[in-house]
Amino acid sequence: MESGQKLATTIEAANQEAYRRVLAGDPILTDVRLAREAIEGLPDRTILHAGPPVTWDRMCGPMKSAVTAAIVFEKWAKDLGTAEEMAASGGIQFRPNHDFNAVGPMTGMTTPNMAVMIVENRTFGNRAFCTVNEGMGNVMRFGGNDQEVVDRLKWMADELGPVLGAALRHREGIPLKSLIARGLTMGDDMHMRNAACTGLILREWAPALAQTASVINELPRIYDFIAGNDMFFLNIAMATAKSMIAAAHGIDGSTVVTTMARNGTDFGIRLSSTGDSWFTAPAGVVSGLFFSGFSEADANPDLGDSCIVETVGLGGFAMAASPAVVGFVGAGTVAEAETYTRTMAEITIGPNPEWTIPALDMLGVPTGIDVRKVVESGIAPVINTAIAHHEPGRGQIGAGVARAPLACFEKALKGFDESVAKL
Amino acid sequence: MESGQKLATTIEAANQEAYRRVLAGDPILTDVRLAREAIEGLPDRTILHAGPPVTWDRMCGPMKSAVTAAIVFEKWAKDLGTAEEMAASGGIQFRPNHDFNAVGPMTGMTTPNMAVMIVENRTFGNRAFCTVNEGMGNVMRFGGNDQEVVDRLKWMADELGPVLGAALRHREGIPLKSLIARGLTMGDDMHMRNAACTGLILREWAPALAQTASVINELPRIYDFIAGNDMFFLNIAMATAKSMIAAAHGIDGSTVVTTMARNGTDFGIRLSSTGDSWFTAPAGVVSGLFFSGFSEADANPDLGDSCIVETVGLGGFAMAASPAVVGFVGAGTVAEAETYTRTMAEITIGPNPEWTIPALDMLGVPTGIDVRKVVESGIAPVINTAIAHHEPGRGQIGAGVARAPLACFEKALKGFDESVAKL
Repeated sequence: MESGQKLATTIEAANQEAYRRVLAGDPILTDVRLAREAIEGLPDRTILHAGPPVTWDRMCGPMKSAVTAAIVFEKWAKDLGTAEEMAASGGIQFRPNHDFNAVGPMTGMTTPNMAVMIVENRTFGNRAFCTVNEGMGNVMRFGGNDQEVVDRLKWMADELGPVLGAALRHREGIPLKSLIARGLTMGDDMHMRNAACTGLILREWAPALAQTASVINELPRIYDFIAGNDMFFLNIAMATAKSMIAAAHGIDGSTVVTTMARNGTDFGIRLSSTGDSWFTAPAGVVSGLFFSGFSEADANPDLGDSCIVETVGLGGFAMAASPAVVGFVGAGTVAEAETYTRTMAEITIGPNPEWTIPALDMLGVPTGIDVRKVVESGIAPVINTAIAHHEPGRGQIGAGVARAPLACFEKALKGFDESVAKL
Repeated sequence: MESGQKLATTIEAANQEAYRRVLAGDPILTDVRLAREAIEGLPDRTILHAGPPVTWDRMCGPMKSAVTAAIVFEKWAKDLGTAEEMAASGGIQFRPNHDFNAVGPMTGMTTPNMAVMIVENRTFGNRAFCTVNEGMGNVMRFGGNDQEVVDRLKWMADELGPVLGAALRHREGIPLKSLIARGLTMGDDMHMRNAACTGLILREWAPALAQTASVINELPRIYDFIAGNDMFFLNIAMATAKSMIAAAHGIDGSTVVTTMARNGTDFGIRLSSTGDSWFTAPAGVVSGLFFSGFSEADANPDLGDSCIVETVGLGGFAMAASPAVVGFVGAGTVAEAETYTRTMAEITIGPNPEWTIPALDMLGVPTGIDVRKVVESGIAPVINTAIAHHEPGRGQIGAGVARAPLACFEKALKGFDESVAKL
């Protein structure tokens, strides 16, 4: 076991290395493929889900509902009832997206025949995956499970995905780092607001789409699908964040948080130096604003892999960049939004000089959550998020600000201490 | 002649009516047509130009250069030399764009066979026109006059315009008021930054373009032309502003400025109540930042109809919305940008509650320049603008902040006083 002073120096150096790697990332959106083609080692009859590992019996309502629809989509069962029996009787393997360098919003379903976007971190050569955003309304990520949901995913896999992928390959990818930098100056936080980046990436994508599309008469629907959804870019931001923070995973002695994710039952985090261990606590309730007719009593606990964006300084950490989000999530005034960002600076390694916020005189977004700082200060990471109804298939009912449970960080620090005690 | 007190009341009521009309405007981008089809009464062998009336001998270098290219484009002469002789010998009629409810950036050339966009103010039924933005680099608006410039305009008239127009007619227009409101929350000032609105309008336009394009193999170039130009939306913003402020023109007793425009030689303004009279003064030099290798000595005096956007509270008046512009035009810090907007509130009738600025806690942009307030306060309207080289065809050499010459406003107020003395 190292001496206290020496250990502190080791941790400091390790965290600086983690920070350096996140900043050095060069995420490029390179392709859209079926998950079974893109994700190496993806087993058959397996459903990837959001958050830390969870068994069928502990899954929240929306996730159970999404699972049954995903089984029908994959034609592993002919209807929702049979699908539920199959899921409950162990006929399906459930694994976290994060086990496969993937991420998914809300329920986060990823199955072999869904289209996934591939973001490659060119600096380090690693890749991250995320399904294509389904749009708003009745969608699988909120537990939607009817034929409309399944048909849309089928169209996305058969028609949309190949066209998107061909255009990306034609133009050799779309660089995302500068695009996100620009989005931050245009009011996006990249979690609850992706309006600017959706426009920016459509500008990049549109010419190549027109040039390479094999099914010309699908083009209007494809443009409409992208252009009509302010949150289209969210899934790209998530894969971007995953590709960047993954490069900082596996550094001995680092206390930087490389995963935050929720499955609607548990909230889990992982640290750079503690391998695949999850440190979990019950997922909390999100405080925010509810759509007309709904209240906190209808809300599912915090859900989804989307908070991966907060690990690289976006979302709630970049709230000051996004005055429009402040109102949407009920976070108070624009001035209060700035406080969120400044407070997150206290629990992170440093700012990202390439991702800056005009309203804070070009301060960089706070990057690299240090589990020690979280535990010492008692300041929990803030997450901008959507709120799902706790009943299956009811969809989004609001948006708000969640706090990652401090218990996860306390357990993680204990786990870290135990791991260094063995050295 | 009315008594002082009564006159003041009349002016106040007239200005409130002008303000009300601007706020009530409902600008819709409805079509793209050739100028000779769109603009009623456009005479043959006529070139519309930016700013107040100007004769060939008094035109600045870039405008003369653009005129010769416009003549070649229209095939009124076979080459630039012949075109220049024709222009100098009275073979061409020169008229301000504003005589025909049109506007044009920089040299502002509008000729019968150019494609123009039509913005209809649905509240009042009036229409405004602006050519399609040519992109950056070697372009006619900066005096570019070679075959590349002419060929591009030909492609815009023959291929681009019809496709853009068909898509607009198919979807019955694109409403612009809410789109601009959104752009203001995304960092656009709508004069020197149109990055957000260019993305937003592409999102609106793209699906219909794919659906209606008759020349499918032109689509990649068309998407690329729009998507690749951050300033694509500028010309739409100009036509929008013109359609809104024109509805406030012709109100007896109103001292609201309904036109500001420069031809590179003179700066001219018009008032709501003084008809077609122009009040002019020499165009000033723009103070700003120059591209590498250029300085103020290379700069043409202030040029273009684009400052129509300032008459409805955009551009320099909305500088606080656009931190990115602040740096680009050399206007100092973000905090100083806010001062520009707040100062413009002192010379305008009131804020626009539908076009608000997040950084100023949702203050509306200052709307309706009152010539009396300008003269009394000595505060000249601030204009964000591009800077052209004074030599023909050299293009843009910088960007900066211009002040409308106070002399125009002093003359206009005198003109107003004389007009009311006759009542």
